[in-house]
Amino acid sequence: MVSAKQAAEIIKSQDNIHILMHASPDGDTIGSAHALYYALCALGKSCSLVCADELPEKYAYITDNAAGNCEHPDFVIASDVADEKLLGGVFEQYAGKIDLCIDHHKSNLEYAKSTCLDADASSACELMFSVIKHIGAQITPLIADCLYTGIATDTGCFKYSCTTARTHMCAAELIGLGADYAGINREMFDVKSKARIEVERAVLNDMRFFADEKIAVITLPLALIEQTGATPGELEGIAAIPRMVKGVEIGIMLKEKSENVYKISVRTTRYADASALCAVFGGGGHARAAGCTVNGEKREVIDKIIKEAKRLI
Amino acid sequence: MVSAKQAAEIIKSQDNIHILMHASPDGDTIGSAHALYYALCALGKSCSLVCADELPEKYAYITDNAAGNCEHPDFVIASDVADEKLLGGVFEQYAGKIDLCIDHHKSNLEYAKSTCLDADASSACELMFSVIKHIGAQITPLIADCLYTGIATDTGCFKYSCTTARTHMCAAELIGLGADYAGINREMFDVKSKARIEVERAVLNDMRFFADEKIAVITLPLALIEQTGATPGELEGIAAIPRMVKGVEIGIMLKEKSENVYKISVRTTRYADASALCAVFGGGGHARAAGCTVNGEKREVIDKIIKEAKRLI
Repeated sequence: MVSAKQAAEIIKSQDNIHILMHASPDGDTIGSAHALYYALCALGKSCSLVCADELPEKYAYITDNAAGNCEHPDFVIASDVADEKLLGGVFEQYAGKIDLCIDHHKSNLEYAKSTCLDADASSACELMFSVIKHIGAQITPLIADCLYTGIATDTGCFKYSCTTARTHMCAAELIGLGADYAGINREMFDVKSKARIEVERAVLNDMRFFADEKIAVITLPLALIEQTGATPGELEGIAAIPRMVKGVEIGIMLKEKSENVYKISVRTTRYADASALCAVFGGGGHARAAGCTVNGEKREVIDKIIKEAKRLI
Repeated sequence: MVSAKQAAEIIKSQDNIHILMHASPDGDTIGSAHALYYALCALGKSCSLVCADELPEKYAYITDNAAGNCEHPDFVIASDVADEKLLGGVFEQYAGKIDLCIDHHKSNLEYAKSTCLDADASSACELMFSVIKHIGAQITPLIADCLYTGIATDTGCFKYSCTTARTHMCAAELIGLGADYAGINREMFDVKSKARIEVERAVLNDMRFFADEKIAVITLPLALIEQTGATPGELEGIAAIPRMVKGVEIGIMLKEKSENVYKISVRTTRYADASALCAVFGGGGHARAAGCTVNGEKREVIDKIIKEAKRLI
């Protein structure tokens, strides 16, 4: 385990660097990797960014100017990647070859030669801010945008309990450094595509309640996804909708993967253990958010899940 | 005009105090008034809180312990009240009798004997935090909850451009003082009543687009409000829904007030002047948010508004 300062020293001594993001990239892996990329490019290093999946268009303000010019890396850094397997399609290319991992997940598997982990950080970006300061690079408005993006997306814009006083201090500093926070927040939290609106409308129309309205269930049929053309990015956060209803303790989403195969996402409010519920069906996760896969006809799958969920109420 | 420090000195010299909130109370007027109330009670002063309208139940964690014991005030403070008329039902009782106003609205009419105004503050709570520190009262976790609530609700949880670096510094401090920010944010931003969900579902089902989908319109019929039993508090923010759709520049809500009378709320994204649009119909407001009232049959009202709105695209 290395500190942010040590990580900075290690990085400064390298010249040809690949920076890896996790597959299904989100604002934190994109923001932290790009912040480091721009900081290192400004110091004259040769760098490239790597992600198995396409970066969602909504992050274009961060990603548009990151061409990358490092073909053969001497040093590989993974940012916000808790497990090499999360590299997805580039796993085989980089497995066992990661020199430094910068991360905030308590569950980090320490697969890299050196790991810089701060599990108290709200986001990889909060930690990366500190690393970049130790590197001594100038924090431009673009780098501030990158770091603000990861902090805002991982904390639900400072809503969630992973936010700390330090997180707000970072945000204050980044605003001072020129982060376009209002524009970023609008893009991340307020703008919805028509496809997303269609999906929300459909799942709201279909939401069902059980156990004195303490359990709410929505379904996301393949036909709806096809009909609206919603991308995976546009479906982000749909699983949180049932739990938003006042009084609901367990919110459940059934996402149809293929005929008679459902990916179940469970979100709980206060006391019900989502992870325990999903474990019954061979899945897992955290106390407030977990998942599993269940086979069967929709009605039958709902019955099975509700039966188990009721035990937790 | 007095500074936060001078306001604190004035308040400290008083003993029997009424603290007024504006009608249709929101998180900022409730939070700032209650923070001051608890601070002054702890210093042994006799205080009462006054609001023309009932305080919404979702603020119970702030308001539950504020009994008040001051029948005849020697000193009256208004918090977050830009204009005496906004006192609503208690306007006649207090008009011309307000000794001190603590506010952050640039439009403040300076109706009070002394006005402590900071138009750069995100919220009255941000300014009140400073006043209470100058008073020298201990900032308990309950007071921190009050202040955090107003800051979070007025900034859309730090999303909007009224947020500054100082706003985040205040939030960092309030978290350190014990504000239950995650619980407050859940209550303020994530929990929706069933009535609210019903209303959202109905307006989404009914949303219509014009001018290449740059204009979106929703309607809120009286029948829907009656049928769902949605309270004014539960309808807060519905007007923002059309503007959330990607690509929409002008979002319009028609709220039926009575037969053939519609209250129009206009929200714009970047360039269209909402206030100019509403001025055509005798209304007004700000560039990004404005309102007016239009009489007529629904279809006819929509036609009138759309015709004017198209000129701004």
